Amino acid sequence: MPVITLTTDFGDKDGFVGAMKGVIWGICPEARIADISHQVSPQNVLEAAIVLQRAAPYFPPGTVHIAVVDPGVGTQRRALAARIGAQYFIGPDNGLFTPLIADARDAGLETIFVSLEQPRYWLPRVSRTFHGRDIFAPSGAHLAAGVRLEELGRLITDPVLLPLAQPEKITGGYRAQISAIDTFGNLATNLAWSWVAGKALLVSLKGRLIHGISSAYGQHPPGELIALVDSEDFIEVAVVNGSAAALLGAQVGDTLEVLFTDAE
Amino acid sequence: MPVITLTTDFGDKDGFVGAMKGVIWGICPEARIADISHQVSPQNVLEAAIVLQRAAPYFPPGTVHIAVVDPGVGTQRRALAARIGAQYFIGPDNGLFTPLIADARDAGLETIFVSLEQPRYWLPRVSRTFHGRDIFAPSGAHLAAGVRLEELGRLITDPVLLPLAQPEKITGGYRAQISAIDTFGNLATNLAWSWVAGKALLVSLKGRLIHGISSAYGQHPPGELIALVDSEDFIEVAVVNGSAAALLGAQVGDTLEVLFTDAE
Amino acid sequence: MPVITLTTDFGDKDGFVGAMKGVIWGICPEARIADISHQVSPQNVLEAAIVLQRAAPYFPPGTVHIAVVDPGVGTQRRALAARIGAQYFIGPDNGLFTPLIADARDAGLETIFVSLEQPRYWLPRVSRTFHGRDIFAPSGAHLAAGVRLEELGRLITDPVLLPLAQPEKITGGYRAQISAIDTFGNLATNLAWSWVAGKALLVSLKGRLIHGISSAYGQHPPGELIALVDSEDFIEVAVVNGSAAALLGAQVGDTLEVLFTDAE
Repeated sequence: MPVITLTTDFGDKDGFVGAMKGVIWGICPEARIADISHQVSPQNVLEAAIVLQRAAPYFPPGTVHIAVVDPGVGTQRRALAARIGAQYFIGPDNGLFTPLIADARDAGLETIFVSLEQPRYWLPRVSRTFHGRDIFAPSGAHLAAGVRLEELGRLITDPVLLPLAQPEKITGGYRAQISAIDTFGNLATNLAWSWVAGKALLVSLKGRLIHGISSAYGQHPPGELIALVDSEDFIEVAVVNGSAAALLGAQVGDTLEVLFTDAE
Repeated sequence: MPVITLTTDFGDKDGFVGAMKGVIWGICPEARIADISHQVSPQNVLEAAIVLQRAAPYFPPGTVHIAVVDPGVGTQRRALAARIGAQYFIGPDNGLFTPLIADARDAGLETIFVSLEQPRYWLPRVSRTFHGRDIFAPSGAHLAAGVRLEELGRLITDPVLLPLAQPEKITGGYRAQISAIDTFGNLATNLAWSWVAGKALLVSLKGRLIHGISSAYGQHPPGELIALVDSEDFIEVAVVNGSAAALLGAQVGDTLEVLFTDAE
Repeated sequence: MPVITLTTDFGDKDGFVGAMKGVIWGICPEARIADISHQVSPQNVLEAAIVLQRAAPYFPPGTVHIAVVDPGVGTQRRALAARIGAQYFIGPDNGLFTPLIADARDAGLETIFVSLEQPRYWLPRVSRTFHGRDIFAPSGAHLAAGVRLEELGRLITDPVLLPLAQPEKITGGYRAQISAIDTFGNLATNLAWSWVAGKALLVSLKGRLIHGISSAYGQHPPGELIALVDSEDFIEVAVVNGSAAALLGAQVGDTLEVLFTDAE
């Protein structure tokens, strides 16, 4: 039972995602389709990359993830299909899969990349502005229906990779970055809990200090600013039943410091 | 053909709902999944409860409804699975299913409750902040795949129930509350039409008077404030082709009076 | 494997769409359901009609499209089922399918219309305010499950049709209208590229001039106002990595002029 996911910056009012699903079911009628997000900020490839990194691993092996945040549509940018570990990914070759590729390489998993160059797996007419519908949806549907990755085009080894911010070791701790802000206004960071686990910690950001790591939102009164370990095992900053983003005026890319209080 | 629904306050931009669907299809590949709402106001358990009460009864017997509005995630609050009449419900034990339980009891239907305590039906690693993905989605998927309710944990008889506002009998009518406000700005109330049917009525709220009950929006000119019977057979206040919520500045919990004009 | 789509102005917070899916799966458990849009502006029949025109053709033959933007619900307006070419359409008889009917007639495809008059294909109780759930969803599900169109009611030949704005020939070009504005703020027009292809063009709107037709967003620097051919082969006005709607204060229905510069 093939599973396909969709991640785009198309929003949900214009029917663009619907058209992609129509194309998919025309090719692979038995596909299950899940929307991961269509609310990525317009043209924000990095934001989509992190959304996808956090959701894709929870899908079954063989899932085909189609991601389309594509400011270069219609130019000479390549179109990409990939196998990363046991899952497939389709989209413009602009770095959308960078975090997943990095995670796979860290885990010693195989990655294979193909430049989409076989129009027989696309719609008969390809527009200049909507390759999500005309190239990526049909390519993903053919893959889900059993076409082999290598049939979609030409093997390549140099997919576009985005620079990913990494925490920096500083005296007595780390300087990290806010990597994502969710609907609740919780601030995900790029500092893995495993890097600092077992130490007494002080989190400093936007002029505020947070002592210690909490184990649950509900252990503190509403409105309190806390740090905890998020669902991906990274350090997170949150306001209980509130929005840390709003309280702090925080944005993706802002820095924070996580300091060892034992070490002082 | 198992059906699963999802109701959360997760929004639709971060991929949280997508991750839940991935988990579900990893366990129960044939499940059909419907989103009921992911736009519940953050941490608003009562709002989710009423959305679910209005949508769940339209699903087939055997449907598994997973609802996650969960400010207590990671604390000692119990995790709940229930059979209410012919459908199943999974979520935190915080009152999310109160209106459905009340309706079932009014109708003489059976209700069974289980505290989720069998980690073999959860993801291998359970985070502190995302039980929707780690506990509720896999438990619901196992239930949809044929695991019996009682296998998920321990029978309990004291699920958390929220206090539900009831209309109050007053001289010449009822004092009722606004129970929900929809996308159009229509105001649903907690006064069942059956309580007042057959009488000439006057609705009073926010300093405005509405004479009589209309049978359709389209029987009045755009902009007119009207009262009618909503799709769940409760009294509703609406503005034709407009928003009663915006016109009146009305909020959930505001009171209105429904008076019998015959009786005056 | 039957496919059903849903297009409404119901938004996604209240569970109305979820209830429709529950009704559908109760009647046709094997149906695949795609949301086309639930973010149509309230009561905006023409906006829904254009969203549907742009998405529906990408679905497989036999797809059942249910569309509910229905300010006349509960009045004497008819309920409609149609076959337009190889697809089926269900909704209020208020013009929702006008552009698709026009396209079908231009292409010489057959159109058949039925007034829904067989309550055995509806829910047992029909509310005054939610025919999407009570009439259109079950009718569409029965159609998807194999009931013939003609069984749903009485053949009619006079569906309600909306007036559709057409470009006007003017000296040296065309005066056209903005027909839709998408999430990105791109302005779709009603001027087909085929009408002006092969000529050097100047687009004039809102006091701005655009010289020539670009082949891709990415051929110009961010922020530049450009004209190009959209994914449906109509003239589009866009801002690279920005919003033409915001830059120009443009709205659906605003006029633009597309002039032949060769001809001057």
